[in-house]
Formats: sequence, structure tokens, C-alpha cells
Amino acid sequence: MKVDGKDLRPIWLNQDPEIVNVIDQRFLPHEFIVADLETVNQVITAIKEMYVRGAPLIGVTGAYGVYIAAVSAPGGLVTDDHMTAECDRLKAARPTAVNLSWGVDRVLERMLNENSDSARVDAALDEARIIEEEEAENCRQIGLHGLPLIQEISKKKNNEPVNILTHCNAGWLACIEYGTATAPMYTAFDNNIDIHVWVDETRPLNQGSRLTAWELGKHGIKHTVIADNTGGHLMQHGMVDMVIVGTDRTTHTGDVANKIGTYLKALAAKDNNIPFYVALPSSTFDWVLKDGMDIPIEERNPDEIRYVQGLDQNRTTNVLVPPADSPAGNYAFDVTPARLVTGFITERGTCKASEKDIMALFPEKL
Amino acid sequence: MKVDGKDLRPIWLNQDPEIVNVIDQRFLPHEFIVADLETVNQVITAIKEMYVRGAPLIGVTGAYGVYIAAVSAPGGLVTDDHMTAECDRLKAARPTAVNLSWGVDRVLERMLNENSDSARVDAALDEARIIEEEEAENCRQIGLHGLPLIQEISKKKNNEPVNILTHCNAGWLACIEYGTATAPMYTAFDNNIDIHVWVDETRPLNQGSRLTAWELGKHGIKHTVIADNTGGHLMQHGMVDMVIVGTDRTTHTGDVANKIGTYLKALAAKDNNIPFYVALPSSTFDWVLKDGMDIPIEERNPDEIRYVQGLDQNRTTNVLVPPADSPAGNYAFDVTPARLVTGFITERGTCKASEKDIMALFPEKL
Repeated sequence: MKVDGKDLRPIWLNQDPEIVNVIDQRFLPHEFIVADLETVNQVITAIKEMYVRGAPLIGVTGAYGVYIAAVSAPGGLVTDDHMTAECDRLKAARPTAVNLSWGVDRVLERMLNENSDSARVDAALDEARIIEEEEAENCRQIGLHGLPLIQEISKKKNNEPVNILTHCNAGWLACIEYGTATAPMYTAFDNNIDIHVWVDETRPLNQGSRLTAWELGKHGIKHTVIADNTGGHLMQHGMVDMVIVGTDRTTHTGDVANKIGTYLKALAAKDNNIPFYVALPSSTFDWVLKDGMDIPIEERNPDEIRYVQGLDQNRTTNVLVPPADSPAGNYAFDVTPARLVTGFITERGTCKASEKDIMALFPEKL
Repeated sequence: MKVDGKDLRPIWLNQDPEIVNVIDQRFLPHEFIVADLETVNQVITAIKEMYVRGAPLIGVTGAYGVYIAAVSAPGGLVTDDHMTAECDRLKAARPTAVNLSWGVDRVLERMLNENSDSARVDAALDEARIIEEEEAENCRQIGLHGLPLIQEISKKKNNEPVNILTHCNAGWLACIEYGTATAPMYTAFDNNIDIHVWVDETRPLNQGSRLTAWELGKHGIKHTVIADNTGGHLMQHGMVDMVIVGTDRTTHTGDVANKIGTYLKALAAKDNNIPFYVALPSSTFDWVLKDGMDIPIEERNPDEIRYVQGLDQNRTTNVLVPPADSPAGNYAFDVTPARLVTGFITERGTCKASEKDIMALFPEKL
């Protein structure tokens, strides 16, 4: 998407020298730092230390990691043993990230079909590029399928700004282009529909105020950062026309695991008859689990609650908010039951939040 | 209440020299600073700059301000003119705080009945002390009336810890003793009931993580600070037994204006069949307004959203979280409709959240 008028992705291949670059997202929005990834160790650090985050981007970074492993093989010998060992190390960088092993294994499989060292390097790069473009295309399709939902509201409001609330960052920083929740917003904006986005700051890690606000602002989309507490009040007063969020995992029965706090916004949307959409590539559906309450919820380091990152005297730093001896609890996700979800926006089209409607859109998964 | 084993109130009269002291709450929890109030100007600053906050405490501080105006009258001449002018200045410190003018006027009226300068000074001090004790007693009564609600849950759980969720700071720091929402918690704790409090950090000003966590911790009550996004997830998983919050204004029909985000917790409590109580002195009921949606909601400085206060390298400082050029919206309160409220805990007893039940408890207001 656009950053100060220039097209940008969160990962790209530099031509000269031929290295992979990623935006080091830990320092956004106050510092724009690009990291060079020239070795497998650097790729592992970038994934583990969350320079990059978001399932699609982690998958693509892992895919390019396989290429780096190939191109930097000792003595130029791209052996099965070397590649398998390096790929195991890559996949261990974030063991619970499904997309990481998926991306790594797909590139590995493709390249190991080749016999010569140079053909293996070329195949790895080609497959990584294919995965990158597939992810971008998925998000582009989500944008196209979400567009009519925004267009319709815009028309009903006689082209007054459509107010969309979103939670966390399901934007291009987490994907490659467009994002998932943000894809319909970018597409609507690029089609000259007047929109305004309420950006939940999304405590504890503030991905909304740090990343979503940065993305939207750089692309030129009107937005307002709000405390996570605010959405209910705005909905009560007709200041939200629709909600669009992403998801980390959604059961094929329509229960949505997403960043903690999503459930509260879904309750408020329901209470005020406001449409609540979830945007996702079909790879995020869980085709096995039937009950969202069975999705395990990650508990993270309480220091993420206790410390807040921000800018002080031109440097990014962390401040301690509660008393030093007060315990904190850090539950990372919650589950919004299907009954609160108006519909899903996928790369294949939209559907209602029921097993029947989801399976009708993806009959091959039956 | 207890702070490191010693009894403390947020305001007290020092005997030698005879000055008023308040906790400068702006620096809690990381710095415990006591401010000396010896002049009317200092009292005005303490109220205006929010060294003290919370309706009851503001009222008591104003009341002591009248005493300071009397005791520091030029040449010891406590004239009607001097007192009226000083009281006008005091009341203008926070013009929308109903308790401030109420407290100031009550002391002024009482003292002006006296004729001699010294009798006026004595009357002012006496009336300020009476108001202070009345506020403390109101909260003590709220605690006593809330106690059985907690006792009952404790019994049902075979003395397992009762998990109470609260939002913002409706504690003794905002009152004199006990607080409102916290009064039943302190009373239960002092009666050896095992309780644990989920403390919503309460963005944007973090009164929960800064003040409620400090209060509870100093008194020895088990608590855990959580992001405001978390309560819904905890309720879905049986980790919250009841919610108790305070209120800034409640209609006599039962609609509750309180710190932004309260409505979202009430929705989640309803969705999970968890009792949602509001604790308040009867002075907080609005006996005129019928519809909570008519309560005006204050919009505050967006910088309160953009900057977060915390400790960095042993000093309390503010860090900027979102991009410097992203707008922010700061709506201070929301309104929880009566249909989501299980009941009220007042100094006179408990009642359901309906006009009929509220008026039955306060028949003299009919």
C-alpha cells in the first residue's frame, strides 16, 4: 500500500545486494527501521523477536528464509541435509504459527524436486515469490468482496462518511497488501468512497494505535484512535456504521478467535443492530474444531500489560503503569460466538456465520 | 483504609502546624507525595489540577477550603464579603463538580450564622469535619449493605475466592474511607471473606491500574490488573463471580453513567448471567432525568488517549503511543441502560435497577 505516496510491502527482495528486507515493526509508528535479512539466523531473529508478525507475513518471511538458506549454503552445496536442518530451525522460530511451517515446507518441497544447486536456489526464490503474490491476491480479493458492503452503506447515507470500527491490526503490515480487516477499507478508499475508521488502540500491545493508525494515516485514510472502552458508546450514538475485524482462527461453525476484546465489541454491535464482519483468508478457517470455546487461549507475559511502549524525548521506551508489585493477567485472545457475527468476508466471497453457509462457500472442505 | 498497615485518608487536618494535607494523586502509584494546603490558592490548584478527584473527595476538599479561607482571613477579619468572594473562587475551580459547590456552600452557610471571627473559624472547621465524616459513613454503609451479596457467593463457592471485577477507581482515594464500588470489597476482606479483584486498567487515564490496584494492594487485597479488553473472556470462562462499579450519575430510572467502557462490561455480564452491581451514595442519583441517554457525555483532551503516564528510570513521565499526526477521540463516560444492571448498593440498602424499586428505597424523593 502507499506510504508517503510510495508503494510498500512489509517484506521485499532487494536486488543489489540480493538480500531480504523487512520493516522492523517493533519500532513503529515512531521509528521506521528496515532490517536486512542475509542469514537464516537473522530470519529466525526477525520472526522470533516479532520484527514481523501476522500469520500471512510470517509465512512469507519463512518462505524467503528457505531461499536464504539455499543461497547461503556452505560452498554453494544445496544438499537435502543442509536444507532440512535449516528449515527445522526456521520452523522452530515460532512453533505455534501454522503459516510458518506451511510456508517453509512448501518452498522446501518444491526446491528439493530440483537436482542442481543453482536450480534449487532458483526454485526456492520462485516459490517464495509465488507464496508472496498469493497472499497479496487473497487480500485483494477480500477487499473486492467487502467493497459492496461499504458501498451499500455509503449509498444509504447519501455519500456521508461510512464509519467503520476495527480492533487490533489486521492490515497490510500483517499480510502483504491490503490486509484482511483493512482490505475492504483500502478498496473502498481507492474507489473514492468516503470512509472514516475508528481505530481501537488494542491494549495491551496497542497494535491498533501503533500499527493500524500508522497504516491508515500513511495511505491517507481518515481515522481516529480511541480507547478500547469507547466503541460501545459510539455504537449507542449512531457513530459506527459497521465493524470489521480479522481473526486468528475461526471454526467452520463460525466462532471467531481474535485479539482479546473483540467479543465485547461484537456484543455492543449486536445490542445496537450494527453489522459485525470478520475478514479472513480461507486458510484461517479451522475445518476440524466445532466449538470455538475449545480454542486454546494463549496467556502471555504480564509485563505486556504492565509496561506501555511509546515515545519519550525522541526515543522509543517502555513505562511501568501499575504499582510494581501488582500482578497482571495477559489473555491474548477471546472467542466471539457465531451468533454475534453478521458475516465473513473471504477471498472467495461473503457468507453468513453458520456452518451451513461457510461450507456452501467451501464445498471442497466437506 | 490501610496503607502499609497504617490508617490513611486522602485528606486530613495536620495538627501542628494546622494545615490541610492531601495525597497528590497525580503521582500515584509510583510516587507518594503529600501536598500542604495552607492557602485558598493552593486548595484551588489541588482541585483544578486534580491532586484530588472523585465527587466526595472534591466536596470535602472544598469544605476544608472554606475553613482555610476563614483561618487565613486578612487581619483575622472573617467578613461576609471576604468569605463569599473566596467561596466563589473555590467553586470555580471545577465548575461542573456538583459536590464542590454543595460542600463549599454548606460550610459557608453554617459559619455565616456565627457573629464573632473566632466562632466563624470554629464553625467552618466543625462543618468540614462533619461533611468528611458523613462521606466516610455513607461509604461504610455501602460496604455493609454490599457485604451479604459477596457472602452469599462465597458460601455457594464453599469459601473459594470470590472473583469481583471492577472498572475505574471508585475507591477510598475518590471518597474518604471504603470508597463506593470498593466498599463491599474492603468490608468482605475485613470480615475474612476470601476475595480476588480483577482490576480493569481503565484507559485512557488508567485509574484502575494506577489507583485501584494501589489501594487494594496497600490494604492487602488480592488483585490482578487486566486490560479493559479482558473482562468478556474471563466471564465466558467462569472467572468472574460478580461485577461492582461506581457511577458519576445515575437516573432514578436506573440508567448508569460511569467511566467509558462500563457499558461493555455490563453487556458481557448479561451475556454470561453474572450479577452486575452499581454502588453509589444516594446523592449520585439524578431525581429529575428519566433517560440516561440524555446525560451529556464529556469529551476530554485527546492527549489523554495519545500519552500514557508511567515510570521510566525512576521518574513519572508520559510517552506518546500512536503516530504523532493521528487524531484521537476521548469520550469520558458511557451510559449503561438499567436493563443490564442487576442492582444498586446504596448507604440505605440495595435495590433493583428500576424506577419503582429505587423510589421505594427513597420515598422522600417522590
